[in-house]
Amino acid sequence: TLALLSFAPAAAALKLQVDGQAVVDQLMHLAQWSDDPSPAVTRLLFTDNDMKARAYVKQLMREAGLQIREDTMGNVYGRLPGSDPTAAAVATGSHTDAIPGAGAYDGTVGVIGGIAALRALREAGFTPAKPLEVVMFTSEEPTRFGLSCSGSRTMAGLLDPAYLDTLRDVNGSTYLQAATAAGYGAASSAQMVAGARRTPADLAAFLELHIEQGPELEKEGLQIGVVTAIAAPAALRVKFSGDGGHAGAQLMPLRNDASLAAAELAIFVEQAALGTGVIDTVATVGSWQVQPNAVNSVPRETALEIDVRDIDGPRRDGVLAAIKAKAAAIAERRKVRLQIETINQDPPAACGTEVVAAVEGAVRELGLSSKRMVSRAYHDALFMAQIAPTGMVFIPCRNGWSHRPDEFASPSDIARGIEVLALALAQLAGG
Amino acid sequence: TLALLSFAPAAAALKLQVDGQAVVDQLMHLAQWSDDPSPAVTRLLFTDNDMKARAYVKQLMREAGLQIREDTMGNVYGRLPGSDPTAAAVATGSHTDAIPGAGAYDGTVGVIGGIAALRALREAGFTPAKPLEVVMFTSEEPTRFGLSCSGSRTMAGLLDPAYLDTLRDVNGSTYLQAATAAGYGAASSAQMVAGARRTPADLAAFLELHIEQGPELEKEGLQIGVVTAIAAPAALRVKFSGDGGHAGAQLMPLRNDASLAAAELAIFVEQAALGTGVIDTVATVGSWQVQPNAVNSVPRETALEIDVRDIDGPRRDGVLAAIKAKAAAIAERRKVRLQIETINQDPPAACGTEVVAAVEGAVRELGLSSKRMVSRAYHDALFMAQIAPTGMVFIPCRNGWSHRPDEFASPSDIARGIEVLALALAQLAGG
Ligand SMILES: [Mn+2]
Ligand SMILES: [Mn+2]
Ligand SMILES: [Mn+2]
Ligand SMILES: [Mn+2]
Repeated sequence: TLALLSFAPAAAALKLQVDGQAVVDQLMHLAQWSDDPSPAVTRLLFTDNDMKARAYVKQLMREAGLQIREDTMGNVYGRLPGSDPTAAAVATGSHTDAIPGAGAYDGTVGVIGGIAALRALREAGFTPAKPLEVVMFTSEEPTRFGLSCSGSRTMAGLLDPAYLDTLRDVNGSTYLQAATAAGYGAASSAQMVAGARRTPADLAAFLELHIEQGPELEKEGLQIGVVTAIAAPAALRVKFSGDGGHAGAQLMPLRNDASLAAAELAIFVEQAALGTGVIDTVATVGSWQVQPNAVNSVPRETALEIDVRDIDGPRRDGVLAAIKAKAAAIAERRKVRLQIETINQDPPAACGTEVVAAVEGAVRELGLSSKRMVSRAYHDALFMAQIAPTGMVFIPCRNGWSHRPDEFASPSDIARGIEVLALALAQLAGG
Repeated sequence: TLALLSFAPAAAALKLQVDGQAVVDQLMHLAQWSDDPSPAVTRLLFTDNDMKARAYVKQLMREAGLQIREDTMGNVYGRLPGSDPTAAAVATGSHTDAIPGAGAYDGTVGVIGGIAALRALREAGFTPAKPLEVVMFTSEEPTRFGLSCSGSRTMAGLLDPAYLDTLRDVNGSTYLQAATAAGYGAASSAQMVAGARRTPADLAAFLELHIEQGPELEKEGLQIGVVTAIAAPAALRVKFSGDGGHAGAQLMPLRNDASLAAAELAIFVEQAALGTGVIDTVATVGSWQVQPNAVNSVPRETALEIDVRDIDGPRRDGVLAAIKAKAAAIAERRKVRLQIETINQDPPAACGTEVVAAVEGAVRELGLSSKRMVSRAYHDALFMAQIAPTGMVFIPCRNGWSHRPDEFASPSDIARGIEVLALALAQLAGG
């Protein structure tokens, strides 16, 4: 795709060249580093494949003429200096980690596309007033430590290092240990977290490019989604514990099967989400851990991870409260023990009006079709919104699919998203 | 415990010496080879710990003066020759593998206790007419390949090598590959299975010593359970598959969550077992495998392993049929795909009258309290019953607990079980 554009805010004509197919080739190159066979992409924080993906991202940043910086948490920055050396930066970026069995576009489009946007601006001869940054946020996905958005959460000052120290991966490692082994980290978790902190003083705006992960744009035949708010995510860990026993010998009336308590709760979680009567409420039991998980044993311990989101914070909190109450009632009736832990309960984020305006200006400049929409998935943008005016650019993805190997966005949709991103970043940075 | 006994059938006074504490010491020594920390015992077929356990069992057999033989499937035999070299053997034995997070007594009491029984007979100067054998059956538990009683099932001619070849462990290995790596196996699965075959011509009777795995003996204050029948076990693998998706972005009405279908079925499985109105029906969803099993993903695929048992075969089959029908109805309503596989559907086994009589004769000789009972758990005895008159001796276990780290049987109960086993074997072997 070759876009010849007059870029109004900079009062200069910018010839932006964004090659959608080249970006797709880079996305496919990145997708090879996966713990599961292609087309599935599984890339967990600080694994060998994650380290290889990081090296490739840094290579692309270097080739785009960006200055590379990595912080203690493992966030990777590529920077295009501004003409005003004291100005706060305008940033873009997303993540490259992937949950088990995911696809090649979630997050990666915002990292590789962000690099492409900065490269296109630089190659068009644009020098921003404020510095431009593209960030590869560390572990947006919660897979390894059960904590989503570790990188952006830390930048926003919302990660308590004492809490971080309580988390363990399947091997019993802490984040600090894993980060240190990967060449990041610090002398303590407190120092590691402090080392990644950003403030409004050094961040002027944030804008993330991402696939929609929903079907609306494709269904309505629109090219760009202008995000105005990000839904409020929350996650609970609910563990039921019974006495287990032999599947043949333990008679039915004597059992307290932990998985049956979990099964009842899972069905209630669905009912609770449907019960608000509002399409924006979603609730999911995504993770089931059963012990001992053997065909001839009554489950002794079953832990569920429950994800609840809504664009309305109080309504979301009402669903969470109902789930906790139901879990307690089930535990009492089924005579199992119950532990509930709130993994996160974050507020929704409203996007910054100047960022939304910059995106809509770029959409107009490019003559694209668009609509305003809400992000139901959360993103690093949710946390960046705590410290800077924030926005998101969505592009369509096939059937709204995401977190699946057959996730897909077209080269032309990707190129258009990058062009919108580049123009909006230029407008926000001034030049 | 020192037992001074007149042993009527052999027309000779036998001084049997069974040291319960020594047997318990051997059980605790065996329990150290576990993939989970003590007191949990996790020992899967042909793992390092299983191989160490096998070496120890063979050492105990050697110390008891038994002749060791191992077959192609990995069954281990210790033999005390009889005075009639052409006679079919009288066998005892059980298993030493353990499901994840199990205890130190399930199966092991019948292997180490079986060795102790043959040793006590030999040391008392008893020479059997028929040979006596103690067997460590290979993989009674289904953990590694999803198939229970691989050893005894094969001895009885009830394992189809073509079916065995369809099974894979978590690493994608076949039984033949795993057995070969462990020093067993053969040129093909057919040869491996043929190499472990037993027939009525070489097996005169089988008697297994085992902890009850239920609460009845302890509750009634009885020392010995004389098993007259073994419940009919069956297992299904039910897999629901949906489209997955992002937990934030995929709206509730568009979902086909595989785990919710599974949750509904699990609750029905409990209802179906309770619904027969008979205490002997038990049904369990012991194993849950969820993909991708991530907090922010709608479950795409959920596989359940369902165990159904009853002492009445047709009643058990009615429950199985109801579960299959319910699974189909759930799959249709929730728009998920369904695969059902019958892992096994074995008939119940009635014990041989002469074996039951030998056990009851031994109980009388020793002046012990006992009752006749049904084994609700299945055992290798279930398959040995297909080729020889079979029986089981149960001893009490604390609270009826089994398949748990706190599984326990007292040294005196274990010693009494071994004495009953030894006397009954002597009676069955003649001498
Ligand atoms: Mn994601
Ligand atoms: Mn993402
Ligand atoms: Mn068992
Ligand atoms: Mn057993």
